[in-house]
Amino acid sequence: MLNVTARQELLSRIADTISIVVEEARFDFSENGLNVRVVDPSHVAMVKLDVDAVAFETWEVEEAMVGLEMKKLKELISLGGADDIISMTYDGKGDVLMNLGKIDRSSRPLDNNTLNPPNLPNLDLPCSVTIRGSELAQAFRAARQVGDLVTLSIDQEKFTIHVSGPNDSVTVVYGHDELQGITCESPAKSQYSLTYLVPLGKVFSSIESVTIAFGENFPLAMDFTFSDGSGSVKYFLAPRVEQEGY
Amino acid sequence: MLNVTARQELLSRIADTISIVVEEARFDFSENGLNVRVVDPSHVAMVKLDVDAVAFETWEVEEAMVGLEMKKLKELISLGGADDIISMTYDGKGDVLMNLGKIDRSSRPLDNNTLNPPNLPNLDLPCSVTIRGSELAQAFRAARQVGDLVTLSIDQEKFTIHVSGPNDSVTVVYGHDELQGITCESPAKSQYSLTYLVPLGKVFSSIESVTIAFGENFPLAMDFTFSDGSGSVKYFLAPRVEQEGY
Amino acid sequence: MLNVTARQELLSRIADTISIVVEEARFDFSENGLNVRVVDPSHVAMVKLDVDAVAFETWEVEEAMVGLEMKKLKELISLGGADDIISMTYDGKGDVLMNLGKIDRSSRPLDNNTLNPPNLPNLDLPCSVTIRGSELAQAFRAARQVGDLVTLSIDQEKFTIHVSGPNDSVTVVYGHDELQGITCESPAKSQYSLTYLVPLGKVFSSIESVTIAFGENFPLAMDFTFSDGSGSVKYFLAPRVEQEGY
Repeated sequence: MLNVTARQELLSRIADTISIVVEEARFDFSENGLNVRVVDPSHVAMVKLDVDAVAFETWEVEEAMVGLEMKKLKELISLGGADDIISMTYDGKGDVLMNLGKIDRSSRPLDNNTLNPPNLPNLDLPCSVTIRGSELAQAFRAARQVGDLVTLSIDQEKFTIHVSGPNDSVTVVYGHDELQGITCESPAKSQYSLTYLVPLGKVFSSIESVTIAFGENFPLAMDFTFSDGSGSVKYFLAPRVEQEGY
Repeated sequence: MLNVTARQELLSRIADTISIVVEEARFDFSENGLNVRVVDPSHVAMVKLDVDAVAFETWEVEEAMVGLEMKKLKELISLGGADDIISMTYDGKGDVLMNLGKIDRSSRPLDNNTLNPPNLPNLDLPCSVTIRGSELAQAFRAARQVGDLVTLSIDQEKFTIHVSGPNDSVTVVYGHDELQGITCESPAKSQYSLTYLVPLGKVFSSIESVTIAFGENFPLAMDFTFSDGSGSVKYFLAPRVEQEGY
Repeated sequence: MLNVTARQELLSRIADTISIVVEEARFDFSENGLNVRVVDPSHVAMVKLDVDAVAFETWEVEEAMVGLEMKKLKELISLGGADDIISMTYDGKGDVLMNLGKIDRSSRPLDNNTLNPPNLPNLDLPCSVTIRGSELAQAFRAARQVGDLVTLSIDQEKFTIHVSGPNDSVTVVYGHDELQGITCESPAKSQYSLTYLVPLGKVFSSIESVTIAFGENFPLAMDFTFSDGSGSVKYFLAPRVEQEGY
């Protein structure tokens, strides 16, 4: 049994975050909150999104797993403003009922057997920096202007975002003092695809602190919270290891 | 002889309303005001628009019928702001002269023989509701997200807008108390195409009261006024009767 | 050696103005300021742009000629707001270094041998008018709605912009008193292509005074300044002479 209501703004943030990676997702509701784990079709990027029940306006939930199309959720969201209340009701079988103002939308949920939330890697990443989300979004956007493959490098003193194109390069260097935090046991450098990173910009633009952790040829992990910490997101991205013979 | 001036905002509303149904229209000017009757090429939707002379800034008119392309009128409108004054002059032959600020545009009117204003149905529709235009526009937009064919149903207690898609449905129910008015002799239900209804949203968004009248497999009639009642619009839409064997 | 900084707004205006005519341009920096001369690929329109060193925030320059792609300059500009400071550094060989906030962009300059700034005509044009830029932009936009070939005509009393299409015409007449200035030795009339003139609108919209000079089948010259007169632009456009036998 599921009966929850949320401000449009919260659902919008959830749908936008998941949409970075997938079109369809299984929403796992439990007594304590909502958990979503998704991986993109190429198995390069993953998102783990957890929202505590307190972030919602009302929360009456026994365990429920609901497969939803992000497009349909966004369609309903598009009908309202940030402060409008959206409800979602599901009795475990049949349709998911959503409401916004006078509008009731009934959707057959996706077959959960076709939605396989990934196992998330348990990573111990040696380096991390904490930075304002809008700064990171701008840097990724600048980097994308000259190429697709970004090199992140870090040591105890600075964090560097760098892309080289055939005739151009973009470099963004954040010194120790320009970051909200930096931790680095030993210098590291790794490459990632901006095709996956740039779409994060829309979500990042209103996030005060994003923590980026990575290591030499390790996956990248980005963490941030929203709704006063009751929502949290972990984003994983596989490294682009340049192989010999390529 | 025709010599009228109007605020850009009024002409914009007139052009937008007519454009819902046609690209070309005959504007019938008389001593008392402007009358336009148009039917879409499929003969499914009609608009009857009447604007009293008082809605215009100046009005010097002997009878005149002027065939205009909505695109040209909108082009001139697009050059000005809401408060700019646009004039239209026509001596019954030759070109129509329009002016906005320093700009004079001369257009050869369309041949009135190719423009045949339809005869409008004289309908006695058994049921009607009155509702805020922006609410109706939102409901049509929500309905369009799941299908094209909307079912309107009504009884003395409520007015319902419903669409079923293959996996989704949208239902909007307005109870007696949530409407500005409801009249219904006997319950009725009828289907209409949202392809025709959704474009009305642009016009409806600023209309305080729209009256929708319909009946079982009858055409739909929508009435609203603008410019403090000196402009009035009647929109007709044929029902989509599901035929046996389909 | 080149080491200059400018407000984003200034560079944006420079890049927009040059982009009216070309994708690539040679920026000639000297002790006193920046000079750019460009001609469009069809050799129909030319721009001469001069910006005094005082319009920049800082200016440390020995002579330098730098070939730049407008697209790249605009990409960097797009990352900042009007008040952000952008720097450009070049040591005469190697790459051009540009900076906006934390972002460093390095670009290999274009080969100056492929960029040939045109010789500008030395014209003594018999007639000229001075007019607000936004008015001129609106008139060109209105004219473009009915055709491509605009006729400018002038005498001591008025300046007229006119286009005839197959069924429509647009005429804009500015009387003596409606212009900031008019000079005309003998009446003149000449035709120009709006395909070249309309894109000027974006630049003109914030310009207080544009001076247009032309003569019978002469090129058109438009002059305007920005940044309190420290930036000046001269735009030349070849006439469209209707030839016999065409």
